[in-house]
Amino acid sequence: MLHRSGVDRLLKENLESYRKRIEAGIAEWLPPCTTRPARLHAAMRYSLEAGGKRIRPVLLIATSELFPSEADPIPAAVAIECLHTYTLIHDDLPALDNSALRRGRPSCHTRFDEATAILAGDALLTYAFQLLSHAYRERPSLANALVGILAEASGSTRLIGGQQEDVENEGKALDPDTLRFIHENKTAALLTAALQMGLAFCQPGQDPRRLIETAGYHLGMAFQIVDDILDATSDQAAMGKPVGHDAAAEKSTYVVLHGIDGARSEARRHTKAAIDALKTLGGANTLLIALAGDLETRIH
Amino acid sequence: MLHRSGVDRLLKENLESYRKRIEAGIAEWLPPCTTRPARLHAAMRYSLEAGGKRIRPVLLIATSELFPSEADPIPAAVAIECLHTYTLIHDDLPALDNSALRRGRPSCHTRFDEATAILAGDALLTYAFQLLSHAYRERPSLANALVGILAEASGSTRLIGGQQEDVENEGKALDPDTLRFIHENKTAALLTAALQMGLAFCQPGQDPRRLIETAGYHLGMAFQIVDDILDATSDQAAMGKPVGHDAAAEKSTYVVLHGIDGARSEARRHTKAAIDALKTLGGANTLLIALAGDLETRIH
Repeated sequence: MLHRSGVDRLLKENLESYRKRIEAGIAEWLPPCTTRPARLHAAMRYSLEAGGKRIRPVLLIATSELFPSEADPIPAAVAIECLHTYTLIHDDLPALDNSALRRGRPSCHTRFDEATAILAGDALLTYAFQLLSHAYRERPSLANALVGILAEASGSTRLIGGQQEDVENEGKALDPDTLRFIHENKTAALLTAALQMGLAFCQPGQDPRRLIETAGYHLGMAFQIVDDILDATSDQAAMGKPVGHDAAAEKSTYVVLHGIDGARSEARRHTKAAIDALKTLGGANTLLIALAGDLETRIH
Repeated sequence: MLHRSGVDRLLKENLESYRKRIEAGIAEWLPPCTTRPARLHAAMRYSLEAGGKRIRPVLLIATSELFPSEADPIPAAVAIECLHTYTLIHDDLPALDNSALRRGRPSCHTRFDEATAILAGDALLTYAFQLLSHAYRERPSLANALVGILAEASGSTRLIGGQQEDVENEGKALDPDTLRFIHENKTAALLTAALQMGLAFCQPGQDPRRLIETAGYHLGMAFQIVDDILDATSDQAAMGKPVGHDAAAEKSTYVVLHGIDGARSEARRHTKAAIDALKTLGGANTLLIALAGDLETRIH
């Protein structure tokens, strides 16, 4: 058992190392900006290289290290970040959230144009699967498991379904059930997939799939609730995107439904449940537990 | 060797049987319209069930029957039709081709709304890979080969790349090289993938991959050129979508560049090259050869 300061240092060092590997993976695997058609590939890299916290690939890699593994998780980490980035590009479109800024810079359709943004999103989504299929072709069972997890989590009944209900209900007062559906699917599904994909690299002693699903679910719910709290309380400089956007769009959020204190208490409850599941899972879980705690107390 | 009338009858009967199996496959594999969120799933089925010629799944199944095979090609046929349908939905969007009609009915964003059309397209694209991964999970090498072929053909350097250059050059006079790039990628890439995916089901005696690629390339080029000819010469009732649309959008086409006769001669040349490759390939190729000839002389 490490002291709290030791855990913090371990977490900081590991996050830096993970992010470097992820950035290098993106640089290595994505087609260069000069690939024909250059404007399309420039748009793909523009959005993918915008940075951000790289939460999903970090979680994937950290989970892949819980137990011994032989395959390199980096291509899978790049694939899930491609998929996440496509959802941001399409979410920002005028027909959806109509957001001109993303991560402190013009969003993809603002910087390029709407047609290019739609196609760049389509291309990043497609590339996620191409990369998994190609990079793990020598291990087709692993490749197919990764494709299946990612496709299901991001499909019409999960991520895209959550996005659809979010769009349909813009400007309406949400009941708690609809809000939970949106968060479970728009956010928690892909975070759970990050953990499940990481676990696909491991050969653990016992079957830990239920525990990793539980951890992913609670982590994802906590992540979204903290996002809502930050949207209601932060300023634009800290967030790198327009804030108060949810309130302006009359979105129902956990903050609107339960108040700031109620939302904080929900985030704490979900974080604790995620950490409990990770503790039961065992393995080299110190870092992943520290990461889960860190996500709750992040400032942006 | 069958007589011409025998080939015609064989083709007609087989096409009907294939299309029935494809429609049944779509009905079986796609989530029901009532699946939450219902509007999203209704939009997915609305576009997928609009009919059309089902050329890509028909080619996939016909190719899978060239040589003995054990696995069922129907899920793969449904997957490639899902992928094709997503490209139509996104192509029709206001930011791209801005087409209000598709296959004689309101296009997806006209019937539903723009946000739902974007998300339904994303969902069909995602589902194509989910279906391949799930349906062939007991044969992970086959599943991964199918995912790889489909993702590469529909990615940023192929199908989406062709679409990007098409959009970028709308209203401009095209040089033959750009026009060829667009046709090779926007159309021929996915038709080639249909043949390659079909071949992945077979265990033929010799390695026929180059021949099937050649056949797919020439078939796809012929298909697109005939499409251009039909756009320039047919009326709307026969096509089920607005015609003369290319001319109105000042699109460069083979007809604009080479005239009707020149375009017809190019279509004939490509069709002949495709049939030659299929003849050399051997196997039970009578139907596939008849199908290739039929595509050149189709009226819509």
